[in-house]
Amino acid sequence: MPQLSTRITSLNEGGSDGWEVFYRARALVAAGEQVTELTIGEHDIRTDSAVLDAMNASAQGGHTGYAMVPGIAPLRAEIAARVTARTGVPTGAANVLITPGGQAALFAAHLAVLDPGDTALYIDPFYATYPGTIRAASGVAVPVRTRAANAFLPSAQAIEELAFEHEARSLLINTPNNPTGTVYPADCLQAIAAACQHRDLWLISDEVYDTQVWEGAHLSPRALPGMAERTLVVGSMSKSHAMTGSRIGWIVAPEPVIERLIDLATNTTYGVPGFIQDAALFALRTGDGPEAAVSAPFLRRRARVLEELARHESVTAIPSQGAMYLMLDIRRTGLSGRAFAEALLDARRIAVMPGESFGQSAAGHIRVALTVDDDSLVRAIRCLCTFAREYADAA
Amino acid sequence: MPQLSTRITSLNEGGSDGWEVFYRARALVAAGEQVTELTIGEHDIRTDSAVLDAMNASAQGGHTGYAMVPGIAPLRAEIAARVTARTGVPTGAANVLITPGGQAALFAAHLAVLDPGDTALYIDPFYATYPGTIRAASGVAVPVRTRAANAFLPSAQAIEELAFEHEARSLLINTPNNPTGTVYPADCLQAIAAACQHRDLWLISDEVYDTQVWEGAHLSPRALPGMAERTLVVGSMSKSHAMTGSRIGWIVAPEPVIERLIDLATNTTYGVPGFIQDAALFALRTGDGPEAAVSAPFLRRRARVLEELARHESVTAIPSQGAMYLMLDIRRTGLSGRAFAEALLDARRIAVMPGESFGQSAAGHIRVALTVDDDSLVRAIRCLCTFAREYADAA
Repeated sequence: MPQLSTRITSLNEGGSDGWEVFYRARALVAAGEQVTELTIGEHDIRTDSAVLDAMNASAQGGHTGYAMVPGIAPLRAEIAARVTARTGVPTGAANVLITPGGQAALFAAHLAVLDPGDTALYIDPFYATYPGTIRAASGVAVPVRTRAANAFLPSAQAIEELAFEHEARSLLINTPNNPTGTVYPADCLQAIAAACQHRDLWLISDEVYDTQVWEGAHLSPRALPGMAERTLVVGSMSKSHAMTGSRIGWIVAPEPVIERLIDLATNTTYGVPGFIQDAALFALRTGDGPEAAVSAPFLRRRARVLEELARHESVTAIPSQGAMYLMLDIRRTGLSGRAFAEALLDARRIAVMPGESFGQSAAGHIRVALTVDDDSLVRAIRCLCTFAREYADAA
Repeated sequence: MPQLSTRITSLNEGGSDGWEVFYRARALVAAGEQVTELTIGEHDIRTDSAVLDAMNASAQGGHTGYAMVPGIAPLRAEIAARVTARTGVPTGAANVLITPGGQAALFAAHLAVLDPGDTALYIDPFYATYPGTIRAASGVAVPVRTRAANAFLPSAQAIEELAFEHEARSLLINTPNNPTGTVYPADCLQAIAAACQHRDLWLISDEVYDTQVWEGAHLSPRALPGMAERTLVVGSMSKSHAMTGSRIGWIVAPEPVIERLIDLATNTTYGVPGFIQDAALFALRTGDGPEAAVSAPFLRRRARVLEELARHESVTAIPSQGAMYLMLDIRRTGLSGRAFAEALLDARRIAVMPGESFGQSAAGHIRVALTVDDDSLVRAIRCLCTFAREYADAA
């Protein structure tokens, strides 16, 4: 066999750690064991059947040939109108590219702004694929570390210093944040925007959790002065409409960037199924109701989990305002996030993600997904706290 | 606006030419004019409704969450069994990655074998995206020119020489070929295989037209001695099952390559909709009937077009054995392929692709897609030949 590219053999280098817990939990379930899985961001509901009916009607109606590579015109227009309404930034269909999922949008955005060897910054803790996505684009992935004590909010000064040191081309942020649940406040985003302008960085803003905000409001940094011209926003139907399996997302960006991204899509994906685009259009045109229905359980469960956590001292929640996760500080146990997650799975058959899976900044933490029914979730949290207490007492 | 990457701004450099004819034809149609479009490889039928029923049943049955990134196990197994049966090469599910379309498979294959600046060879004439796909992977795209007089078959010696000169890492071939319709015979493939082994090249074999062979048989170069370990086969449901809009394809490759490609998919696409995979599985399990039904019109129309062409001297068909196109030599008119296509669209409202759209080797030719009903097609060919005669007589 000839040599594979260094790019593909080094994707996971020095990357996240602790996904073994997730895979071990899956193996236990496959072997018939009962495990409470609080690992990945998968809703416990399915895509709404009315949306699936719209997809079927489109397909049976003949929308089964190649769709336009940039996306169908009415969907691009609908997303543009939605972005305009929510952010106040005038946005047209020509600012929107439909992609086969948010992950593909993240990859395309980095391909658009990075040449091989260019540095891309990202905030640590991070969604698991970020450094691999940057490396797949032949970029150098450099984390901007944050601290639990500061609710994992990034420091604009750290961004500026790293951008200067590495001559970085871009910064990737995610608000509401996975894994921490933090929603970046206005002053944080303004400081980030200033850093981007000062260092001439592209800002890639992953906003796929924009409908899951429990306190305050989601702010898109694209709406800040001077930022529309240097921001690529990544959006998706996955989290907002429980359409993870439909693989449909988008990029909102300056028109000249979208023009180039269409060239890229022609040569790398050749578009997104038309019937899935019609389903997404149907879902978006239904208004805010479905989004609210999809996010309601997470808001409710979050309240119940925080209520339960208040009764325990062994584990503390990181203050957070959004997304379908809670990040818990388990440092009082004296264990690493990974050791704790492994032990919890072994002893209690509860699966959580070690903080270390999301970067070094989240060491000593675990991420809990609010993706099982309310009562099971509260029971699991109580059990988890009791379990942590045993270690904390011994420590 | 900061600078975009050179990668994305140079995708279309020095590339194909003459797509203006296609876009102009589309604009005429949009403006209400009647145009006979013989341009792109889009069937004049829709995806079979039984396949769409299977998709709907899967989606309504709850297969709407994230599917496994490598593809669902039964689909990978089905494709492996099909490849084993058709090529005789023992192939398992672990040799198969499901991708969001054949184009995405071509891109992933090049990302797997090319580091930035590495040369990838491809055969000219070529499917329009090939050089852009290689450039999107930060590769250097080097064409291997062929000659109409040799039915556009590549010379193994030319491949060896270019591979040596450029220290190439890979060769991309396509049989049955788009745009020429040529099906590479055994001796041609054996010589290519020897060149790949001699120069330690990866072979990326685009076989998406493997069910459209009108004379002889399709041979997969992966079946040749020593080639399974260096060949990545690209397949798709698009052409074989009229599922162009479903965007589902695959790569068949050595297991260690698939393992790395799964890492890549995790960081760049995050899989393919489960309900589309279930639809593809249904279609493949139905056996060869649907494939034969989808390809039958092209076989029939090809015969009628060749019969019509035999009555004219102004235009000659390049001998071909497969795919849904015919390449016609119009050099007797004294026009370039592009000038001829422009003039034909202006004067007769018939749209064909200039050979130059597919590379310099196809200059002085046009590509005709067999994608309109039989009688309209024959009428258009007759009109085209008469039109060519006027120029030939004047030349």
